[in-house]
Amino acid sequence: MPHCPLGPSRRVCRLLTENLSRPSLPFPPQMDQDRGWWGWGGGGRKLKSHLYFEMAFGWFAKPVEEKTPLRHHEEMKAAFMAEMKTENIKHFLFNFTQRPHLAGTKENLYLAQQVQAEWKEFGLDSVQLVHYDVLLSYPDENQPNYVSVIDEHGNEVFNTSLSEPPPAGYEAVGDVVPPYSAFSAQGVPEGELVYVNYGRTEDFFKLEREMGINCTGKIVIARYGKIFRGNKVKNAELAGAKGIILYSDPADYCAPGVDPYPNGWNLPGGGAQRGNVLNLNGAGDPLTPGYPAKEYTYRLDKASGVGLPKIPVHPIGYHDAESLLRNMGGSAPPHSSWKGNLNVSYNVGPGFTTNYSTRKVKMHIHSNNKVTRIYNVIGTIRGTVEPDRYVILGGHRDSWVFGGIDPQSGAAVVHEIVRSFGKLKKEGWRPRRTVIFASWDAEEFGLLGSTEWAEENAKLLQSRGVAYINADSSIEGNYTLRVDCTPLMYRLVYSVTKEIPSPDEGFEGKSLYESWYKKNPSTEYKEVPRINKLGSGNDFEVFFQRLGIASGRARYSKNWNVEKYSSYPVYHSVYETYEIVERFYDPSFKNHLTVAQVRGGLVFELANSVLLPFDCRDYASALSNYAHIIYNMSRNHEEELAIYNVSFDALFSAVKNFTEVADSFHDRLQQIDINNLLAVRSLNDQLMFLERAFIDPLGLPGRPFYRHVIFAPSSHNKYAGESFPGIYDAMFDIKNKADQDEAWKEVKRQISIAAFTVQAAAGTLKEVA
Amino acid sequence: MPHCPLGPSRRVCRLLTENLSRPSLPFPPQMDQDRGWWGWGGGGRKLKSHLYFEMAFGWFAKPVEEKTPLRHHEEMKAAFMAEMKTENIKHFLFNFTQRPHLAGTKENLYLAQQVQAEWKEFGLDSVQLVHYDVLLSYPDENQPNYVSVIDEHGNEVFNTSLSEPPPAGYEAVGDVVPPYSAFSAQGVPEGELVYVNYGRTEDFFKLEREMGINCTGKIVIARYGKIFRGNKVKNAELAGAKGIILYSDPADYCAPGVDPYPNGWNLPGGGAQRGNVLNLNGAGDPLTPGYPAKEYTYRLDKASGVGLPKIPVHPIGYHDAESLLRNMGGSAPPHSSWKGNLNVSYNVGPGFTTNYSTRKVKMHIHSNNKVTRIYNVIGTIRGTVEPDRYVILGGHRDSWVFGGIDPQSGAAVVHEIVRSFGKLKKEGWRPRRTVIFASWDAEEFGLLGSTEWAEENAKLLQSRGVAYINADSSIEGNYTLRVDCTPLMYRLVYSVTKEIPSPDEGFEGKSLYESWYKKNPSTEYKEVPRINKLGSGNDFEVFFQRLGIASGRARYSKNWNVEKYSSYPVYHSVYETYEIVERFYDPSFKNHLTVAQVRGGLVFELANSVLLPFDCRDYASALSNYAHIIYNMSRNHEEELAIYNVSFDALFSAVKNFTEVADSFHDRLQQIDINNLLAVRSLNDQLMFLERAFIDPLGLPGRPFYRHVIFAPSSHNKYAGESFPGIYDAMFDIKNKADQDEAWKEVKRQISIAAFTVQAAAGTLKEVA
Repeated sequence: MPHCPLGPSRRVCRLLTENLSRPSLPFPPQMDQDRGWWGWGGGGRKLKSHLYFEMAFGWFAKPVEEKTPLRHHEEMKAAFMAEMKTENIKHFLFNFTQRPHLAGTKENLYLAQQVQAEWKEFGLDSVQLVHYDVLLSYPDENQPNYVSVIDEHGNEVFNTSLSEPPPAGYEAVGDVVPPYSAFSAQGVPEGELVYVNYGRTEDFFKLEREMGINCTGKIVIARYGKIFRGNKVKNAELAGAKGIILYSDPADYCAPGVDPYPNGWNLPGGGAQRGNVLNLNGAGDPLTPGYPAKEYTYRLDKASGVGLPKIPVHPIGYHDAESLLRNMGGSAPPHSSWKGNLNVSYNVGPGFTTNYSTRKVKMHIHSNNKVTRIYNVIGTIRGTVEPDRYVILGGHRDSWVFGGIDPQSGAAVVHEIVRSFGKLKKEGWRPRRTVIFASWDAEEFGLLGSTEWAEENAKLLQSRGVAYINADSSIEGNYTLRVDCTPLMYRLVYSVTKEIPSPDEGFEGKSLYESWYKKNPSTEYKEVPRINKLGSGNDFEVFFQRLGIASGRARYSKNWNVEKYSSYPVYHSVYETYEIVERFYDPSFKNHLTVAQVRGGLVFELANSVLLPFDCRDYASALSNYAHIIYNMSRNHEEELAIYNVSFDALFSAVKNFTEVADSFHDRLQQIDINNLLAVRSLNDQLMFLERAFIDPLGLPGRPFYRHVIFAPSSHNKYAGESFPGIYDAMFDIKNKADQDEAWKEVKRQISIAAFTVQAAAGTLKEVA
Repeated sequence: MPHCPLGPSRRVCRLLTENLSRPSLPFPPQMDQDRGWWGWGGGGRKLKSHLYFEMAFGWFAKPVEEKTPLRHHEEMKAAFMAEMKTENIKHFLFNFTQRPHLAGTKENLYLAQQVQAEWKEFGLDSVQLVHYDVLLSYPDENQPNYVSVIDEHGNEVFNTSLSEPPPAGYEAVGDVVPPYSAFSAQGVPEGELVYVNYGRTEDFFKLEREMGINCTGKIVIARYGKIFRGNKVKNAELAGAKGIILYSDPADYCAPGVDPYPNGWNLPGGGAQRGNVLNLNGAGDPLTPGYPAKEYTYRLDKASGVGLPKIPVHPIGYHDAESLLRNMGGSAPPHSSWKGNLNVSYNVGPGFTTNYSTRKVKMHIHSNNKVTRIYNVIGTIRGTVEPDRYVILGGHRDSWVFGGIDPQSGAAVVHEIVRSFGKLKKEGWRPRRTVIFASWDAEEFGLLGSTEWAEENAKLLQSRGVAYINADSSIEGNYTLRVDCTPLMYRLVYSVTKEIPSPDEGFEGKSLYESWYKKNPSTEYKEVPRINKLGSGNDFEVFFQRLGIASGRARYSKNWNVEKYSSYPVYHSVYETYEIVERFYDPSFKNHLTVAQVRGGLVFELANSVLLPFDCRDYASALSNYAHIIYNMSRNHEEELAIYNVSFDALFSAVKNFTEVADSFHDRLQQIDINNLLAVRSLNDQLMFLERAFIDPLGLPGRPFYRHVIFAPSSHNKYAGESFPGIYDAMFDIKNKADQDEAWKEVKRQISIAAFTVQAAAGTLKEVA
């Protein structure tokens, strides 16, 4: 029995229930198999344990000495899980949200130094501040940004507000940056206004193709929601607009029956959503694409930075939007689905400017792009057995204002996870692999801190990176868990969530897995909770989409079937305070603790299991699913498939081969002698490099930093993940492409690349010689 | 003492002299330290052994049990080295050269099947034929290629010959492909002829800038030599030529005082050099760049294939060249250095066409590009301890005609190496790591077999590839050894060559290292033999330049200081027969054996040493050397360096850091407990991935498949290696670039990329956590 560093006061009730380092459940997991779970204090909830059941499944039939390393793993995990406390998370959240922590400001450097000092105190082996000099964007303090309605003489008859009314208690806080669209082009364009609904690709198609409305030379106004704002801006540019106004419509940012903050958690009418409007496509710092923004790094001219919008952009709240639109007059919206919930909804619609043709809109945008120093905090615990294998937990620290939810509800959880790992380490334990903790800077400005760090450390990450767990906001609702991850982690997520008690009302004594499954079952796989594809819009991007490191993220979310508003109402406004969390979202902080247990549990298993807790068979299922989806999409073009001789056979054949090879690999894994260190290392390397095998160094067409052939952020919405993105994009709107022959050739080329990549990935799972 | 599989008849005289798995010599090696070497039979030469000397250095002071694994390694190496025999190599060479083995023909498939069968018989674990369908190029059997001189009426008053006179004894052999330039464009252009010397960049600069000669619309004639023929063709295209004739001038293809074959080894006047004229820049099959040319792979249209010349190209011998030029008349060459050794040398010079303006040259080129199946033979011996680490020995099998030198003098050596490894394996031994043997197809058509295989297996090679040893022609002369390799292998090459007896006259009892050093000392490093940078033009290209796998090559070569002719005279002609080797180049085959021992010895050490025999300190020295070279080159532009604020400081700083980190790494390596399997694996992984760390996935500008930041094939001569190629190319001819500001920005960008890459590579050698 190895040394147990835990004092007698710790209750380590959970005994061996299953080999978590290698889930051996049939897939999908059998929900009717009642299991003993946890019992590590925490909320004081205790749950029935069915040890007799586990015994029946054979664990206790094995000699005791065989179980020792696993028992130690389980005991340490139980101690780790029990160490995390709601009160600490609450305390950290309060501490992190008392001032704004805008990237590039002194306040955010001070917070970095505080985090560094505390992580050291928690016991990490090393904690470094790592800086980069990246392009950021700030409003001009002397020339505020706003939008006017101008009359026929050019007089500004209405101006949007210059700031949000501060929440009670925060009136005296300085350095609250007013709402702005970071990286907007400068300019004072004026023109007629055209309403473009959400500004999605399909919205512009409708405008241009069905309604015959040309946006060239117009200023467009789009409501926030549905897609990443940068995509809206890109679409407006492509449509020829000379400016774009983004506003929060009550339809998208107010839940029915809920008061605006501070009496409820809806967005007040004076609130507006900050955010960057870049189209970086994974490049990181716009001036140093592909390389870290260090002192010695060559920088592009500011004018030729990657992904910078070419037109002015500005965000407004719904009060201003209402006034603005009311002043403009207009016709009814073209389609009921385009209608928001503004009181002036009757005025909202494309072409409504024709009523008041003498009135125009004028934007006044004076924000500056500026190379600014940012700071990541990077902490490590060195692994004992495989220090050269890295499991990374990262989340950002910078916030638009107070960051009550985004990101500090995540950063507070990371802090508590670090403290808990540190506690175990102080008591003599270390994980098998090295764990790296990261507090990223400038996520809000385009994932810059994480991307620059990954660029600087790409060579190490490629050869040593096992997994990346992302930790932005822990909550965006309080209904159930939401997970996006690589198929390699599906089973790990399921097994970890089976060991965590559900925080939900009505699920007392049940596991998180159970409440999650009940509330959000998968529509793709039988009898498991839904897990989504990874898209982007967060710091995992560079790790997953560029480097091919297995990644995942988890948070507490809302009921998407019922709650139609986008993200959460006060997102990126000044109203994202500690109080909105403490009063409305998670007063007990039990959802935060649950998310800490999920994120921490994943990191623990990834860092400490002898065999990596990845299951390649689930990648096979996912690939098969995605292949069928893209094939079915192609069948909208049966005629062209025949004319241009387009076949998906090679892709299906590759998926079939991958499936067989994955099954064989899994069988070999069951038979491994875990005392054979090099054999274990070799199989683990095959598992580690599997995600890497999906990376094509040539990148996706036009997106050199999105290199994963199976997944990419959607070209139409950075937030969403697209499967087989190369094929998808080649087929997108293909009927309207001028050169059909070339267009279908590109589809064939993309199918070929996908088939090759899947075959090659299968090759990595075969016996090594 | 481990089981010794060798029978009592084997003489295993060489005892422990030094730890070859980790050379610990000071650098540069001390030549005055006389060492005991070999003694493994072979040529019957025996050499003094200085065991007492080694004992004085402490080896025998250690307990016997510590030496056991090393002793076993040394004994097995001695057995392996002694196994290889001149007679076998000779026999294999004879066998491989009796028929033409042009890529894509039945004969070369049959040879592949023979090699497969024999490698199986030799005892390899597996031997596979692996095929690809790649673009090849053949003359049209019904429409021969030739060049005419036409008079003012268009009559062909002179035609070049359609084939080479066959060598005695080979008159009846069919399927000898006539001399042609593979992948030439089809066409029958006619025009005035312009002599362009070697067709190098500097030759065209001289023509255009100093002599004011415009090649637009002309047919140019270049002599072979100095640079890769594809570069000549590219230069001609860029100069606007509508066709290019390549000829072998006696100045470049005849050694003074030597008879033409068969009485000597000079090129006969009717001989001509075949060869591809592609500018693939590492793409492999022109129709499937970046992906393996499998059945399912999407292919570009033939017209848009990568690197295909746009103009007709044809090679001729010096008899035809003489007649052609004599018919044209002309003035004296512009510069004495441009004058070849033809009897019509007085006629050779740019502008000579002005004398006979009515006479033009007409090319008749009808070769076809055709997708054709090629076959690699891939054999493996599975490693015992680390089967997931690959050491690769590869050389091509296809030849233009008989391949007496190119490639069969190499293939015969590979065959003997495989046989010898197989022998040891049959006796119960296996190497620590997996060894892969490859007989590549279609090297002559653009390194296609090796590149397609590496494309198919890139994911495996990236994560498991330790080293690649190239094995084309074993000889191009009989003077001394010639080695091109990564700096990581310098010390390994030196230590291996110190253990091999010199085959040279006058060096009886001395090592290969000694004769090599004496005949070709390094001008860069003190007291060691010269080792060259890797360029391209051979099958290591994809492994080294694209994938970053440590690579090396070795062959017996001529005295470059004296022998000014290019490569060897009969290169790529029908006169490359078995007999030219057996009569002139290496009658005893002892040079072949020496090359077998070098190549085989490298593979043995790489595959079987516990610690990888790479020394990162030599990379540091090389980087420092290259940084100084490129910096000194920049100093031709002192004024611009100041104006545009160009600094190399970041690069020198990175090199300094690399040097320090490499020293520390080396120190740690000395202290490792070699019984700690995972610690050994981890350090070996750092060594293995070091070469990989120099790979930039974005590639060099305009050359996406040349990804090594430190080395690339020269943009002006594929055969040569250029260091810091990105910076070099940015500065090349910079004074003549139109936009000086943009040009110097690109220099700065390239310095930045180089500095980053060296820093990042240093990062991989630091302690892992």
